[in-house]
Amino acid sequence: MLGAPVHIAVIGAHLKNDSVEELAEAVGRQIGMAGAVLVSGGGTGVMEAASRGAKGEGGLTIGILFEASRSDANEFIDVAIPTGLGHMRNSLVVQTADAVIAVGGAWGTLSEIALARCHDKPVVLLASWGLERPDGEPLDVLVAETPEDAVRLALGAI
Amino acid sequence: MLGAPVHIAVIGAHLKNDSVEELAEAVGRQIGMAGAVLVSGGGTGVMEAASRGAKGEGGLTIGILFEASRSDANEFIDVAIPTGLGHMRNSLVVQTADAVIAVGGAWGTLSEIALARCHDKPVVLLASWGLERPDGEPLDVLVAETPEDAVRLALGAI
Amino acid sequence: MLGAPVHIAVIGAHLKNDSVEELAEAVGRQIGMAGAVLVSGGGTGVMEAASRGAKGEGGLTIGILFEASRSDANEFIDVAIPTGLGHMRNSLVVQTADAVIAVGGAWGTLSEIALARCHDKPVVLLASWGLERPDGEPLDVLVAETPEDAVRLALGAI
Amino acid sequence: MLGAPVHIAVIGAHLKNDSVEELAEAVGRQIGMAGAVLVSGGGTGVMEAASRGAKGEGGLTIGILFEASRSDANEFIDVAIPTGLGHMRNSLVVQTADAVIAVGGAWGTLSEIALARCHDKPVVLLASWGLERPDGEPLDVLVAETPEDAVRLALGAI
Repeated sequence: MLGAPVHIAVIGAHLKNDSVEELAEAVGRQIGMAGAVLVSGGGTGVMEAASRGAKGEGGLTIGILFEASRSDANEFIDVAIPTGLGHMRNSLVVQTADAVIAVGGAWGTLSEIALARCHDKPVVLLASWGLERPDGEPLDVLVAETPEDAVRLALGAI
Repeated sequence: MLGAPVHIAVIGAHLKNDSVEELAEAVGRQIGMAGAVLVSGGGTGVMEAASRGAKGEGGLTIGILFEASRSDANEFIDVAIPTGLGHMRNSLVVQTADAVIAVGGAWGTLSEIALARCHDKPVVLLASWGLERPDGEPLDVLVAETPEDAVRLALGAI
Repeated sequence: MLGAPVHIAVIGAHLKNDSVEELAEAVGRQIGMAGAVLVSGGGTGVMEAASRGAKGEGGLTIGILFEASRSDANEFIDVAIPTGLGHMRNSLVVQTADAVIAVGGAWGTLSEIALARCHDKPVVLLASWGLERPDGEPLDVLVAETPEDAVRLALGAI
Repeated sequence: MLGAPVHIAVIGAHLKNDSVEELAEAVGRQIGMAGAVLVSGGGTGVMEAASRGAKGEGGLTIGILFEASRSDANEFIDVAIPTGLGHMRNSLVVQTADAVIAVGGAWGTLSEIALARCHDKPVVLLASWGLERPDGEPLDVLVAETPEDAVRLALGAI
């Protein structure tokens, strides 16, 4: 099945932010070039930029939507799952992936980073949240400097 | 996007039942031949038979899984969404489709028939549940006699 | 904990229907008199009538809401859980109960009847859906003639 | 309805940690003394300690469970909602509250902090996660030094 290739989720904010979207598109391109499936929330901003990047390289893109209608997916989504779950769909995004790359991000992205770790999925942060555990223990997430680095770390961690 | 074609969900029981699975496979074939995307719960029984039918005609199959791991999808699923939601995922199956065809079915199938109508999705019954509303009003579902009939009715109702 | 008493869900349509609401209120009264906790979707129609009946007898009422705000509960709900899940919350209503009584009902109610059986919860039908399984096997639900009968059957089945 | 009082969620890890649970129990006591309803995930660790604190002051406690059975609630939960949703229930915990207090916490707690902010609920951190936004903007969460301080800040922010 197409499900056999590695699936990587790219998570980030839906609001417009040129420099962050440039990073996300480069991440998407690397995912497409690696033959991996790109999973996202299927919306605007980082989700759209990453999906555009992957499609440009012939990749397959899955969008698990905040909204209840398939037509709410951005134009670079091949397979749209409309949930109507709002932010509760964040959990489905990370469960569908083998690893998660956060590019920038707001509170929704932070929830996905945390839920990914609850499900023991490797997480790579690129220009994303700074985090310190309450107990001071090491974080158990990976930090990337570039889009290439992010995808390399994600593929290596699966 | 691939999301633009019509999506038809085929719903039915996961337990083995040769005659019902034969009907489901024929429904899947018709869906594949029509160029529609087949959505199901991605499991065994009717879900597997319908997906096998669609794949045999070159169709695309989406499975929205009861379980939390992509590897629980049957072998005919192209895109698997692992939810870990159990029967709550039934709602996502029908939301992802433009019309729903029930083939036979047990209680889970009945919940999907009902949830599809809650979301105003056309429902076609093939050798499936008999239903009578409490108020005696007409049911507002379609009843098919054959697999060809079922897919024709579903496509016509979208 | 208050959770130790028996919990009975009363399910039915949110639209106004005087004769059905009269039955629902009587069911709620019997539940309150039995010292059981009443669970519902917390909305209007049957949900409100049943909760009013239970409160009149000093019962505790839980409402698991379609909407995302506690303020959407009807005035007879003691504990409101706002889900924002729409019809997906139907599954939580039946999971929270030890038995389910359907009074009249539309498609949402039918989904709850079916989901209750998926979770092996006893179901009692009062002036509700007529159902016939695809395989012609017996239904495994109870049918009541009166509100008193419905609550007696539900308590007996737990 | 009982739903009218302020509802405060206390979130934190389920694993045993004496010093963190001591803080959580003190937070629960303050919530009970304030006449507020305590919402939690209904499990062990911080959830149990906070609920014990609230019950000791005569407060009402709601537990929205990870598991699918009411019997999985800790003994200090008055009203248990079994979800079977796993970490997806984290969203329901914060939606049911008017404000959220995080005491210590692991990844699940971080997801609840983030989901609370997605839903515009005030968040108070007590000996909890250190957070820095990707864009360097201020965090828009409150930081408390003591349990008394935490409940005072939460009540003030509603």
